[in-house]
Amino acid sequence: MDYSRKGILTPQMKHVLTEEAISEGELLTRIAAGEIALCANKNHTNLKPAAVGRGMRTKVNVNLGISSDSQGGGASPRPAEGKERSSACPEFENCADHDLEFEKARLSVELKADAIMDLSCSGKTQEFRRRLVREIPVMLGTVPMYDAIGFLDMPLAQIPSEKFIDVFETHAQDGVDFMTIHSGINRQTAQRFKRAENKRVTNIVSRGGSLLFCWMEMTGRENPFYEHYDRILEIAQKYDVTLSLGDACRPGCIDDATDAAQIEELITLGELTKRAWERSVQVMVEGPGHMALNEIVANMQIQKRLCHGAPFYVLGPLVTDVAPGYDHITSAIGGTLAAANGADFLCYVTPAEHLRLPDLSDMREGLIAARIAAHAADIAKGIPGARDWDRKMSEARAALDWNTMLELAIDPVKARAYRESSPPEDSHTCTMCGKMCAVRNMNTILKGEKVEI
Amino acid sequence: MDYSRKGILTPQMKHVLTEEAISEGELLTRIAAGEIALCANKNHTNLKPAAVGRGMRTKVNVNLGISSDSQGGGASPRPAEGKERSSACPEFENCADHDLEFEKARLSVELKADAIMDLSCSGKTQEFRRRLVREIPVMLGTVPMYDAIGFLDMPLAQIPSEKFIDVFETHAQDGVDFMTIHSGINRQTAQRFKRAENKRVTNIVSRGGSLLFCWMEMTGRENPFYEHYDRILEIAQKYDVTLSLGDACRPGCIDDATDAAQIEELITLGELTKRAWERSVQVMVEGPGHMALNEIVANMQIQKRLCHGAPFYVLGPLVTDVAPGYDHITSAIGGTLAAANGADFLCYVTPAEHLRLPDLSDMREGLIAARIAAHAADIAKGIPGARDWDRKMSEARAALDWNTMLELAIDPVKARAYRESSPPEDSHTCTMCGKMCAVRNMNTILKGEKVEI
Repeated sequence: MDYSRKGILTPQMKHVLTEEAISEGELLTRIAAGEIALCANKNHTNLKPAAVGRGMRTKVNVNLGISSDSQGGGASPRPAEGKERSSACPEFENCADHDLEFEKARLSVELKADAIMDLSCSGKTQEFRRRLVREIPVMLGTVPMYDAIGFLDMPLAQIPSEKFIDVFETHAQDGVDFMTIHSGINRQTAQRFKRAENKRVTNIVSRGGSLLFCWMEMTGRENPFYEHYDRILEIAQKYDVTLSLGDACRPGCIDDATDAAQIEELITLGELTKRAWERSVQVMVEGPGHMALNEIVANMQIQKRLCHGAPFYVLGPLVTDVAPGYDHITSAIGGTLAAANGADFLCYVTPAEHLRLPDLSDMREGLIAARIAAHAADIAKGIPGARDWDRKMSEARAALDWNTMLELAIDPVKARAYRESSPPEDSHTCTMCGKMCAVRNMNTILKGEKVEI
Repeated sequence: MDYSRKGILTPQMKHVLTEEAISEGELLTRIAAGEIALCANKNHTNLKPAAVGRGMRTKVNVNLGISSDSQGGGASPRPAEGKERSSACPEFENCADHDLEFEKARLSVELKADAIMDLSCSGKTQEFRRRLVREIPVMLGTVPMYDAIGFLDMPLAQIPSEKFIDVFETHAQDGVDFMTIHSGINRQTAQRFKRAENKRVTNIVSRGGSLLFCWMEMTGRENPFYEHYDRILEIAQKYDVTLSLGDACRPGCIDDATDAAQIEELITLGELTKRAWERSVQVMVEGPGHMALNEIVANMQIQKRLCHGAPFYVLGPLVTDVAPGYDHITSAIGGTLAAANGADFLCYVTPAEHLRLPDLSDMREGLIAARIAAHAADIAKGIPGARDWDRKMSEARAALDWNTMLELAIDPVKARAYRESSPPEDSHTCTMCGKMCAVRNMNTILKGEKVEI
C-alpha cells in the first residue's frame, strides 16, 4: 500500500498487470485507496500474487487444515490417550492426516483456486503451515485464533490477552499472506448482541468469533484483537500481511441476517479499516453467511459504504438453511449475486458443510461451484474478457467439436468422465438427443442440405 | 378457466386452496385472468393438481422418457438391426429401459417434484405415457413433436402438416396435463432468425424447435402448430390441456441471449397466449435458456409484459456456458434469480446436461438443485410460509438436535449419509469443528457456564 501511494510499481503489481485487465495507473490508485488488496507476505517467496477488489476477477478460496493430533501423515487417526484437550476433531479419520490436507491444497491449485486458507487447529500446525508457504504458489490465509489454543498449549480461559498477538506474529513471520482476525466483536458489539431485543435464532456461528466471545465472557476483558489492534497493524505492516476483518456476527441462518449485531459489527469493521489504511496496511472485510436472496444486494451496498470501498470477502451467502448436503449450491446461488453486486472474493462451501469435514471429492465439488459463481458474476459485472471463455465453448458446441468442449470445461476431468461413460454411436452427437440433436440438424439444414430423421 | 370465469370452484381448485396461501376469490380471479394455470387434464384422474403462477409456490419439473426401441423394460439396450431410423438414442443403455425411466418418475415424486415431462421419442411411447398417467399423481407434460416421428412412423420431411395435430390429440386423450408446442417459431420468426444481422453463435438449440424449423425449411410450409392453432385450442379445451408455449429460439449460449429471434418469438407467444385465453385455454410460456445473470431480471419483466402476466416456465437460465458436468448448479443460480423475479415454474437441469442422458443419480442431483432454487426464490419473493421450513431447521441447529436437522433436510437420505460417514465422538457436534463447535460453546456460555476448551 505504501509503494502504491508513492507511485512505485512493485514486482507483485507487475504480475497483477499481466493477469488482469487494468492499467498501471488504475491499479496504483486503487491499491492506494484500499479498493484493491494485493495479498503478498514478503516471506512467501514463491507466491504468484493475486489482487482482490474493484474491477478484478472474482477470486475463490479453499479452506483446509489439520485438526487432530496429526504427526505429519501418521497412520493413526485417533489421538493418544489423555491428549484430548487440544484435539478439536479427534473422531474424524481424515483430519488426522497431514498428507491428505496437503493433497487438498495441491489439488486446489490444480483446480485453479486463487487462495487457500489453512484452518489447522491442532497437531503440528506450524510444520503444516510452513510446508504450504514453501510449496503453494497461491495466496495463503489463516485464522490465528484457531491455532491459539494448540500453539499456546493453554485452556482458552487462561490465555493472557497479549499472547493471542504472539500467534498472529508467528503466522506473519511464517509467510501467511492474509489473516482473519475477529476484531469487530468487541465489548460494544457483544453488548448489542446480548440485548433481548436483538435475540438471534442461531447466536454466533463463527468459530473464531464464538471463541473470542467466550474468552471475553470468561475473563471480563476486551477482545485482544481489538485492544491490541495497533500492535497488529505494526506486525502486519512489517511482513506485508493483509488483514481480513472477520465477521463474528455473520448470520447463521436467514432469519438472523442483516440484524443489529451484524450491522453493529460492520460499523466497527469500517472504523478498523480506516485505522489500518492510515498505517498502510491492506484490508479485506468478511461478510455473511446465511441470507435470503432478496437481502444480498443491499448487504453488498451497505458493506461497500460502511467499509469505504474495501474488498469484500464473503462466505456464501447461503440462500436457504434447509439444504445440508447441497450447501455448495445454496452458496453458489448467493455468491453469484453477491459477487455481481460488489463482493470480490468468495470462500468455497462444500456439500459437507453443516455435516462433517469435507473429503477430497467434497473439496472438488465445492471449489468448482465457487468458481462457477465467481465466473458467472464476472460475466454479469462486465470484467473484460470474462465472456471470451463462454464464447469459445459455445463455438465449439456449435461445431460439435467435442475435444475442444471437454478441454474448455471448468472441470475437464468430470466432463470427460460423463462423456466417456456413455459414448454415442455418432461421435458428433451425445446420447441425450442422438439423431434429434438440434445442433447437428440445424447445421445441416442451414447448409441447405436435407435432414434425415 | 371457464369455471373460474363463472366463479365456480372446482375440486381441483379446492385442492389448490389446501396447498397454497391464497384465498378462494384471488385464486378464481387469477385463473380467470390467466395469471395462474391449474394444469389438470380431465382424463388424469389420480392427479393431485398443482397451480402454477402468480403468488403460488414455485414449481419444479423433471424430464425423463424412453428414447430407444424399448420393449417395456426389455433387457436389450440396442435396437434391432434395421430399426435405426426411429431410434434417437440407440447407443445409450439406460434409455432403452422403460422400467428405469419409470423408476425416475417414481423417485421424482418421492423427492417432491411438482411435475414430470415425458420426453419419450421412440419405442412404446404410448404405453409408457399411459402408465405414467395411471400411476403418477403429479402433473404430466409432453412434447408431441418429440413423439411425432415415431408415432406417425414417417421421415420428418414427409409428415403432412395436419398429422402433427393428431399426435397432440392423442396425448390429450391419454390424459397429459400440459403440452409444449413450439407455435412461436412461425415463418416470420424463422425469417428474423435467418437474417445475417441476427446471426447466432448456436442457432436453434431447442430440440422440438429445430425439428420444426427443419420441417418448415424442407416443406416450405408454415409451422403446423401455428397454422392449426385454432384446432389445437379446440382439443386443449375439450380435455383441459394447458398449453406450454415453447421457445424454439431460446438462447443456447449466453451470447445469444435476449436477441432479436428470442424477442420476436416472445411477441408471437404473447399473441398466442391471448388467443388461447379467448377460448378459455390455459397457457404457460417457456423461457430461456443460457443467459448472463445481469440479463435475467429484464427478461422476466419482458416476458410478463409481452405475455400479459401468463405463468413463466423456464429452463435454467444457465448463467455460464463453461460448466458441463455442473449445469445443475449454473441452472440453479439463474433459476433462483428468475423465480424471485417472476418465473413460476423451473425445469430441472442435471449434471449430465450437454454430455449424455442423465441416470438416477443425476436426476436426484438435478431435482434437488431445482428445488433449492425454487425454495430460495419463494423466500425471496415472500411466498407466505416459505421461511417456516428454514426457521425450523435453524432452531434444530441451535439446539444441536441432529435428528430433526436430518429429517428436515431437503434430501434427508444424502444428509444422513454424510453425517453417518463421519460420526463424531460427541454426538452433539460434528467433525467439522468438534470441540470448537460455535453452537455448543455459545449455548454453554450464554447459560452462564464455563466453556472447557
